[in-house]
Amino acid sequence: VGVNNLPVKQKGLPKPTGEDGVSVGDFDVAGGITKLRVLNEIRRREAVARVDISTATGLSRGTVTAITADLIQEGLVIELEGAPEAGMPSQRGRPRVLLSLNPDALRVVGVKVAPDTIAVSITNFIGDVVARHDTAVQVRLREPEDVARLVQEGIDHALALAGLTLAQTAGIGIGVPGFIDHASGLCRWSPVFGEADIPFGQMMAKRLGRPVLLDNDANLVALAEQWFGPRRAESDFLVVTVEHGVGMGLVLDHRLYRGALRVASEFGHTKIQQGGALCRCGQRGCVEAYVAEYAMVREAGAFMPACDISDPQATRLALDELARLAEAKDPMALDIYHRAGTILGIGLANLINILNPPLIVLSGRAMRSAHLFWEAIMAALRANTVGGEQDLPRIEVHPWGDDVWARGAAALVLDRLYQLPQNGS
Amino acid sequence: VGVNNLPVKQKGLPKPTGEDGVSVGDFDVAGGITKLRVLNEIRRREAVARVDISTATGLSRGTVTAITADLIQEGLVIELEGAPEAGMPSQRGRPRVLLSLNPDALRVVGVKVAPDTIAVSITNFIGDVVARHDTAVQVRLREPEDVARLVQEGIDHALALAGLTLAQTAGIGIGVPGFIDHASGLCRWSPVFGEADIPFGQMMAKRLGRPVLLDNDANLVALAEQWFGPRRAESDFLVVTVEHGVGMGLVLDHRLYRGALRVASEFGHTKIQQGGALCRCGQRGCVEAYVAEYAMVREAGAFMPACDISDPQATRLALDELARLAEAKDPMALDIYHRAGTILGIGLANLINILNPPLIVLSGRAMRSAHLFWEAIMAALRANTVGGEQDLPRIEVHPWGDDVWARGAAALVLDRLYQLPQNGS
Repeated sequence: VGVNNLPVKQKGLPKPTGEDGVSVGDFDVAGGITKLRVLNEIRRREAVARVDISTATGLSRGTVTAITADLIQEGLVIELEGAPEAGMPSQRGRPRVLLSLNPDALRVVGVKVAPDTIAVSITNFIGDVVARHDTAVQVRLREPEDVARLVQEGIDHALALAGLTLAQTAGIGIGVPGFIDHASGLCRWSPVFGEADIPFGQMMAKRLGRPVLLDNDANLVALAEQWFGPRRAESDFLVVTVEHGVGMGLVLDHRLYRGALRVASEFGHTKIQQGGALCRCGQRGCVEAYVAEYAMVREAGAFMPACDISDPQATRLALDELARLAEAKDPMALDIYHRAGTILGIGLANLINILNPPLIVLSGRAMRSAHLFWEAIMAALRANTVGGEQDLPRIEVHPWGDDVWARGAAALVLDRLYQLPQNGS
Repeated sequence: VGVNNLPVKQKGLPKPTGEDGVSVGDFDVAGGITKLRVLNEIRRREAVARVDISTATGLSRGTVTAITADLIQEGLVIELEGAPEAGMPSQRGRPRVLLSLNPDALRVVGVKVAPDTIAVSITNFIGDVVARHDTAVQVRLREPEDVARLVQEGIDHALALAGLTLAQTAGIGIGVPGFIDHASGLCRWSPVFGEADIPFGQMMAKRLGRPVLLDNDANLVALAEQWFGPRRAESDFLVVTVEHGVGMGLVLDHRLYRGALRVASEFGHTKIQQGGALCRCGQRGCVEAYVAEYAMVREAGAFMPACDISDPQATRLALDELARLAEAKDPMALDIYHRAGTILGIGLANLINILNPPLIVLSGRAMRSAHLFWEAIMAALRANTVGGEQDLPRIEVHPWGDDVWARGAAALVLDRLYQLPQNGS
């Protein structure tokens, strides 16, 4: 079986090719799978010896040596010579040669369109941000075409900072909150746009002269976890994000699940109470209507100064104040966190009853205060899942940095690079 | 790439081999994938010409000819000579040769352990029942070892009817309601057993001298749909069953999803109402506590004679009476169906918001009265899903015959036969 070229065919930065805006070469299934297995093994372990790749994949030493030689020649992988494994003395006086992804193999443009910011980052092959440019703007008050122009300007600025042209990047990923059709690049509905059905992917592609990949914010966080997170070796996990809305990203069998209809995982709008609290979506009893930042601030209106919850900045400041009160043991503030945690826990319990993932990662800005929700979340999980405490998945709170989005957008492009052809089974 | 042997290596009935009780040969990934693609194409289309396999799979005519020759030689596939396609006149006076699975390629033992019946069926390669034996028994009142003995006797009877020995079958599949660990054959909890953690798979394997495959009832219905149902070409769908309990089976990307922890899809115990109706599981507000047969009969206790809902037979009779009242437009009976439909609709809406499947199949005994639930289900779907009516999945009610279980148990074995080795991606 001949091993064809992997996506990136040259040393260093690849030239963009392909309809989808990322450099994807044709490769045969058998050779391609084998090569991807090796590359994934290196990616997941960060630094790994050839013998350990062989053990983990079941491929012969000879095959691993041949494939890794290709990968090194193509500039995707580098040797970390003289780097002993953590805590392991080198054996027989001869340092083990470890393999690692070449951070400089490629550059990716990642964009986050948030209610009040357009953030552009340039990341490398391992998801590190090498340049960044943010534009403060009330996106909702602008025409979509105007937003597209601002995104284009932000990309130009970030590329200039990185000393790159757009053609020197492997692709462009854009994250937008809401119901995003990844396949067509259509924003079915997004809180950042005033109107429905904005073809933002096409608009950006036209401006940039290159196709772009669009996805929703929570999927990007899941991809960032899968590609660069501490749990990237996990085959199945769920990411739930709590910010201005409540989002979810679902990784099944090492792949982001987007739903057969391409707009899945609106966990925030699952119902846990008939005729319950009114949600931004117009329906009642949604998880989001109790748990999102705006929902908590709305309830806090009972004892805190009024806040315009359509203003993300004001909402965030009010939530900071609510968190301060809860830290100071204010009973009403604590009660709001308690109820939000209970509802979030019931929603998570439903997810567990349906999908039974081994790991749930909680993320998003609101989870900076995870300790204020924690007890109520866990009590609700225990009370509403089938099986005992030992059957609960691990629940982890992953710190939320500004780079998560950028990494997610980078992962969106890398994910396409690694994607296997359908096996049609 | 050499095409190794597929699971079944001989003409006709294969000899059982392998640790897992079904005849699975080693085969290399590339050749195996290609062969399975061809076999699946034949399976999904029932009768198909070689040229159409080539078009559908993208494989060359020559490759398809070589692989199908192998499959015919191995006895898995037969030629239907002189069979023109439905409605298509034969071309150029020469009938097209269509390929079809060979129904007699193998036999599978399928067992259903229900609260009041042990049903054993022998099915062929296309899921047709060739022999059947039922034992009426109050399973719950027996010791598990006694139930295992009755299952063994039922299998012996059914095999005798089919003129087969156990060694001439390709495997044994058993369906049990409840939380079943398919991997270990453990019944974590089942309404048919009085105790938890019954190692029923092991018990049966010891008795039969062959390993058995165990799974829960709803998964079996999903497998039956996937293998033999009218929607078997669908890549993604959900099956929800309503009977004594509410079950769910989830097919993602042509594969039954069992959850990473092996006991997934307890849809019936997702919560749609905090502090709602009490469920058999001891928790409140579960979908099942409103929708299951016992739940509807329990509520009907307000105006119908008392019924012992721990008795499946009595519950079924009471439900038949309730359905008769509803058909006669009795307002209280109609109201019970209306509420159950509403709650089921909210539960389904949550599934849609999370997974967005293109198709949901409603099945199970209670769905014989689907028309009584229908309006309330659809209204709840419209009111509780994100997006408009055009975004709803297709909802189909599939008639529930006694053979569904047997077909599901057969599919359980066939599914293992077709299973690809992990590609490790």
